[in-house]
Amino acid sequence: MMKTLSTLQSARYYVKQAIQEQSHSIVVDATLGNGYDTLFLAQEVGMQGKVFGFDIQLLAVKKTTQRLKQEGLLDRVALFHAGHECWESFIPREYKNQINAVMFNLGYLPHGDKTIITHPETTLQAMGHACQWLAPRGIITIALYVGHEEGQAEVDHVTRFASQLPAKQFHVTWTQLLNRAGAPSLVVIERIK
Amino acid sequence: MMKTLSTLQSARYYVKQAIQEQSHSIVVDATLGNGYDTLFLAQEVGMQGKVFGFDIQLLAVKKTTQRLKQEGLLDRVALFHAGHECWESFIPREYKNQINAVMFNLGYLPHGDKTIITHPETTLQAMGHACQWLAPRGIITIALYVGHEEGQAEVDHVTRFASQLPAKQFHVTWTQLLNRAGAPSLVVIERIK
Repeated sequence: MMKTLSTLQSARYYVKQAIQEQSHSIVVDATLGNGYDTLFLAQEVGMQGKVFGFDIQLLAVKKTTQRLKQEGLLDRVALFHAGHECWESFIPREYKNQINAVMFNLGYLPHGDKTIITHPETTLQAMGHACQWLAPRGIITIALYVGHEEGQAEVDHVTRFASQLPAKQFHVTWTQLLNRAGAPSLVVIERIK
Repeated sequence: MMKTLSTLQSARYYVKQAIQEQSHSIVVDATLGNGYDTLFLAQEVGMQGKVFGFDIQLLAVKKTTQRLKQEGLLDRVALFHAGHECWESFIPREYKNQINAVMFNLGYLPHGDKTIITHPETTLQAMGHACQWLAPRGIITIALYVGHEEGQAEVDHVTRFASQLPAKQFHVTWTQLLNRAGAPSLVVIERIK
């Protein structure tokens, strides 16, 4: 095991810490994709936890549903075929201030249609919701893939948004892998109080 | 304890991991400053370990010597009043490929003379030595302070250098604190084989 982690390992490391502090966690997978993170989250939250998930692609919702079903974990998740900016229409208000972790993978669905990508406006809206609904000591991870045309613009938008979060309430790090061109970078937002 | 770490905590976290894997570690404090990292390193390497340290300011060498003496750890360290680019003139050749950790704090000596700062040419030379002498699984940490005029240029030089390290041999991360203007960022170089 290396001491420095890949972007994926690093994101899961932080989320795991946020989840383990709770007896039952409420978490959000803001971009289902192939459902790997959703499965990870469903396993981590335990029997009493709850995972909410969003994706604008029906294929992603289907793949994720199938993956969770295979593992017998479908009862812990609520998946929505909708953009993550519609967060407030789908996640019950009672969970405001109670969300322990939120994971974003920005870019396109790996092995999917590369013309369907996430867009800055909706991403920033969803990040805003995530920050507002996050529990104290909760974690938001945002993996940023640059392998598509709008990738760099998205990175700029997300890092600018994160830079403006109040330092008294949030601790925000941005980690890049310097010697791997095209590797995803990771923004981690921790609510410190 | 927060899940996301400050630059200083983060640097020490990685160095600690690299040191703990060894029964006796050989480490380098490339910039003594006030000697806090030197003391940390001397404590961590244990009785059989060795710390080499450099600083171009006599004040830094004196302060560090005093700090280590107070703690009774002076026998574990060899401090040089010389620039870290003179590495090869001071560290015995037998330690080539044996260095487990190297710490850099780039910028000026806190509470010292702010006109005496580290410079890109000598910094890059020392980073080159560090990469060449590092043991497999060894760690180099470089904290980058931007609170002086040449700070941004130094960040650019260091990150460019680190970006060019071969990906098969080194894993290189760069972590910035996004919402704290002027906070130091951290480059971590891990030799993976």
